[in-house]
This record gives sequence, C-alpha cells and structure tokens, in this order.
Amino acid sequence: MLTKMQKGVFFMISRKGRYTAFFDKEIKIIGFSGVASKKEAEGPLGKEFDKIFYDPMAGKPTWEQAESVFQQEAIALALSKALLKAEDIDYIFAGDLLNQCISSSFGLKEFSIPYLGQYGACSTMVQSLIMACVTLYSGIARHCAAVTSSHFCSAERQYRFPLEYGGQRTPTAQWTVTAAGGCILGMRAGRYPVICHATVGKIIDMSITDANNMGAAMAPAAADTILNFLEDTNTSPSDYDAIFTGDLGHTGVPLLYKLTREKGVDLTGHHFDCGMLIYDKETQDVHSGGSGCGCCASVLCSHILPSMMEGKLNRILVVATGALMSPTSTQQGLSIPCIAHLVEIRI
Amino acid sequence: MLTKMQKGVFFMISRKGRYTAFFDKEIKIIGFSGVASKKEAEGPLGKEFDKIFYDPMAGKPTWEQAESVFQQEAIALALSKALLKAEDIDYIFAGDLLNQCISSSFGLKEFSIPYLGQYGACSTMVQSLIMACVTLYSGIARHCAAVTSSHFCSAERQYRFPLEYGGQRTPTAQWTVTAAGGCILGMRAGRYPVICHATVGKIIDMSITDANNMGAAMAPAAADTILNFLEDTNTSPSDYDAIFTGDLGHTGVPLLYKLTREKGVDLTGHHFDCGMLIYDKETQDVHSGGSGCGCCASVLCSHILPSMMEGKLNRILVVATGALMSPTSTQQGLSIPCIAHLVEIRI
Repeated sequence: MLTKMQKGVFFMISRKGRYTAFFDKEIKIIGFSGVASKKEAEGPLGKEFDKIFYDPMAGKPTWEQAESVFQQEAIALALSKALLKAEDIDYIFAGDLLNQCISSSFGLKEFSIPYLGQYGACSTMVQSLIMACVTLYSGIARHCAAVTSSHFCSAERQYRFPLEYGGQRTPTAQWTVTAAGGCILGMRAGRYPVICHATVGKIIDMSITDANNMGAAMAPAAADTILNFLEDTNTSPSDYDAIFTGDLGHTGVPLLYKLTREKGVDLTGHHFDCGMLIYDKETQDVHSGGSGCGCCASVLCSHILPSMMEGKLNRILVVATGALMSPTSTQQGLSIPCIAHLVEIRI
Repeated sequence: MLTKMQKGVFFMISRKGRYTAFFDKEIKIIGFSGVASKKEAEGPLGKEFDKIFYDPMAGKPTWEQAESVFQQEAIALALSKALLKAEDIDYIFAGDLLNQCISSSFGLKEFSIPYLGQYGACSTMVQSLIMACVTLYSGIARHCAAVTSSHFCSAERQYRFPLEYGGQRTPTAQWTVTAAGGCILGMRAGRYPVICHATVGKIIDMSITDANNMGAAMAPAAADTILNFLEDTNTSPSDYDAIFTGDLGHTGVPLLYKLTREKGVDLTGHHFDCGMLIYDKETQDVHSGGSGCGCCASVLCSHILPSMMEGKLNRILVVATGALMSPTSTQQGLSIPCIAHLVEIRI
C-alpha cells in the first residue's frame, strides 16, 4: 500500500486494507511446545502435548507458582526444539490472566531475556506472536519468543470463587485450561510455519455483563476481526484449510457463525475452536468448553503447528479472543470489552 | 550489526551491542499530552500539564472509571495536537496498573483503534513507546499511539489498603500519581522529538520483599538497563543533556547512583527522576516521591517533550522502571521482580 506523508513524501507500508499487516519476509515459527496437566491429558488431544504435569501444583506450594512452571517448561522445550539457548533470544513477549501477569514475570525471570509483558486476556498468545513477528520484521531482532499460560485453579481464585467454596458452574461457563504454549520465532532456512498476515482487533463491547458467558461476549470481537481480515485480503473461508478460534466454546461458536453469516460469510466446515477441541464435551464435564490463554496456546503449539509440519494443514488462520474485564469492573456492574487478534500461518 | 542465519545467509540487523535496538528512520513523537489531577497541579510542574481534572473522580462513580477518563483525555488531546483523528491511528499500545489493565480497555474502547495491551507496571509508558516505535519501524503502520495512566485511589485499593482504612504510610512509600500521558508517533516532516535507540530490560529480582519500598526494588533494574545501554552505544552520561528515570523516588535514586558508580558510571548531575520532579517533597507529604505509570507518562508528555520542543533539551534518555509483583505474590511472600526499559530521544 502506498501512503503519503505530509509535504508530499511517499513511502510504502506493508499493509492490506484498513486492518491487516502483511509480512513479506519469511518470519517462521522455528520451535513450539505445549505443556498441559492431567485433565487436558485425559482429553482428545492428550497424546499430543509435549509434556504433561500430572500434578497441577507442579511441585510448587501455590497454583500461581505452578502456572509459572508451566510457562518455564513451555519456553524451555520450545528453545530446545529450535536448537537455541535463552541467550539467543532478543525479546520475549508473554502474559497471562493473573493480576499484574505474575505467572509470566515470575516464570520467565530466570531466563534473563529482555521481557515485554503483553495483556490481551485469552488473546495473549496471538498478540504475543504478532508482536514477535513485527519485531523480527522490523529488523531489530534475530529471534523472539512468545509464551502464555493459564491454570484452572489460579484463574478460579482470580476471577470467580475460591475453589473451596465449591460454587455451582452455570451451563455457559467454560473451564480454564491448565496449560502453557511457547513459540520461538526467527528467520531461518528450512520448512517451518510462516506468519504472513496479522490483524489486530479493536475493543468490541456489546454490553454483555455475564462474566459466566465469555463465549457470547467474545464472539462479536472474533466476527469483527475475521470479517476485517477477509475483506482486507479479499479471501473467503474456503481459501483456508482451517480457521481456529481460541476459546469461544460451545456457546460462543454458534453466535460467531450467526454474526458472520449476517455479513455473507459462512464459516461452517472450515472452523474449529481450540476450547472445543481440548476437552470431550460428553465425558469431561466442562460445560461450554475450555478457555484461558493456555487453551489457544497449547492447542496451537501441540496440535495445530505439528499438523502443519506433518503436511495435514497448509494455510490456516488462528484467531484468539480475549475478554478484557476484571473482577473489579464486574463488581462495578460494567460490561465486558472483548478483543480478537488474528494471524495467518502458511507452510 | 551483521549476523549469520543458518546455512550461511547473512543479513543486517538494526542493533547495537547485546541489548540495544537502533532506529535509523526518523520515528517521531508528533503529538503528546499529559493530564493530571489536583495534587499534581499543586506540585512544581502544575502549570505544565495540558489539562487538570481538579475532581479526581472526573465525574465518574468509581476511581477506576475516572482513571479511564484520564487516559481518554490524554489520547484525545495528543491526537488533536498531532492534527490527527482516531481513525488515522493503526495501533494503540496501552496499559496501566489495575488488574487486567481495565483503565486502558474501558478508557480506549470508544476510539475503535486496534489495541495491543501492554503490561510493564510503572515502565508501561516507555514499553508502549518502544512497541509503537518498533511497529512504525517495521513499516506495517503509519501512525501509532502509546498511552498509560495511574490513579492514587484505584492503586491504593488495588495494591495496599482501602483508603477508608487510613493506614499509616511508611517513610519509603511513594505516592501514586493521578495522571495520564499519551503520545502519537509517526514519520512526518518537521521538527519533533525522534526515538533513535531503545533498550528493553530483563527481569531483575534482588529478593526485596517490602512492597512499600518499590524504589529500592526497582533501582537495580534501572542500573542494569542504563549500564547495558551505555555499553552498547559506547556513550557516557555526559553525552546526554539529561537522563530521566520514571519513579525511583528519594529512596531509589541514591541506590541507583551507588549501583552505577560501582561500575564506574557517575549519573550525578545528569540525572532526574520524574517521581521527584512531580511533587514538592517539603510541602506535599509524599514521603519518597511520586510513582505509577502516570508519573513517568505525564512528566514525559507535559514537561520533558515540551522542553525538547523549546530547545532546552536536545538528547535525552528516559528510563521507566516497573515492579512486576501483584498483591497475590506479595501475600505469598514472594520477592519483587523488576524491570526497566529505556529510550533515547533526540531533537
């Protein structure tokens, strides 16, 4: 796209349409790893995770510290798969759901990698991938890392009720995934998944206030970002082998289909939701499916990217959604602002 | 710097030394605005803020919602000073101290700008500037925005005690600044401050656990980033008209001087701290000085950048520090991981 600076200076910018960044260098995901816990191991993707912590405490005294261990392990494994060391990484982009993102800051400090904390709620994995990609594309880095996590127990304590309270979960509630996913990105010869487009979402608030129905709150954000991307790139869902959303779950996905169909875009048959893939709805009692930063991150790193390496998927979209509220805003009766970020990955 | 890819492909990357990114296009801060409240208006910089909300509630029913108004106003004023509208901005980078960064997500949603939430605690302003700068440098954007805020009342509720409790503050405690600062960045002809180098910090944890002594916890992070930058660029403090830290305060600054002096670098005479500039220590009862994301952001936008435009400062460093703990980690007896990010700005 050609744009005009003040005083008539023209320069190229690497965008398509209004919202989509276009990366014409080959920014590759050269290492990736997903780490999960017992419940995820018992789900349909159980055999695909790179490592399982059957103890959700991971040997630590608190859930929050356990979640840090999941991030540590995800990035350590991704580094070893990329044949790199921590000191080879110029920047790490990371975040999580906990107040002040402590899973990341405590989990990653031992690596001594320059750190840029990201907050996009459950969209954090794709946001971190986009930031890593932009940073590599800018030419100021050789390798970047992106990692995020969630933990059922720390998230329940943070957002809802103490586990000991044993509160009844509503039918629309989702189950926060106890998992982490980490990626190493760089420019390297060889066959690796390449990020070629990214669409950053706007904050969308449809005035939903039910903090137990994240899927419905986030679906409009997913629809907005997907429709913007398809328009910007002049493509349709059938151009992609698969379109993955992060964690809309069984309640949010039908709403996404409805919202996109109203704009003439049919996602059925091309679309999968990481929150629906990670647990068995019939046997695992997760109500509306999985959620949390670690849901999209671990499914991406242990299921989607490996499928690309095996040649089962060649051109995909990953759209992670996030609900940007806090317990404070919920207590103050405010609605739930949501966001969705998208990357196109090819191999 | 020349680096080698696998299989012998060489390419240039825009870095100096191990930690410092070098921007050789002119990424300029073309609009900037600081908004503050009554206590800040009564301080030494009171006349420099672009707007004062004498009512710290800014007409809203809660402190958190008031803080959102501060961010809104900072970015709206910065946009108008840059002669741009919200739709001209490709990405906004923002964050704050509140759980899940709700000041930003609620404050900025009306602008409908693609949003990338940042979390660096009190370092968030410089982190957001760096991300905006990298994004522009990559060529995927025409204009980016960076904004952050803090609010004494929402921060006290979040991190320490309810205000109604009337807790005694310790001598090392700092006063969270009620303010916001926003910048618009782009490449444009004309005389504007230019960001030419950026050093992203590592997480530094010196095992300090006193959540009422942030200055001491953050000083080692500031020292690490400043020393890395000076080594990478082969410069010394006397090469700069001024070196500003964000909010080390009266307790942290002597420690910073001690730590840098041990490495042969003398900052005295070149260094100022935004947390010490914003309040009068003698008359305003702020103990160790100001703190919070809004401290560095508002002093940068209403004092430092205007001084550059007036020709009083030509080459400066801004180093914002952040303490990456949460009340949960403090209650669990954990130490305080800290970080410092740096930008060099010239005009």
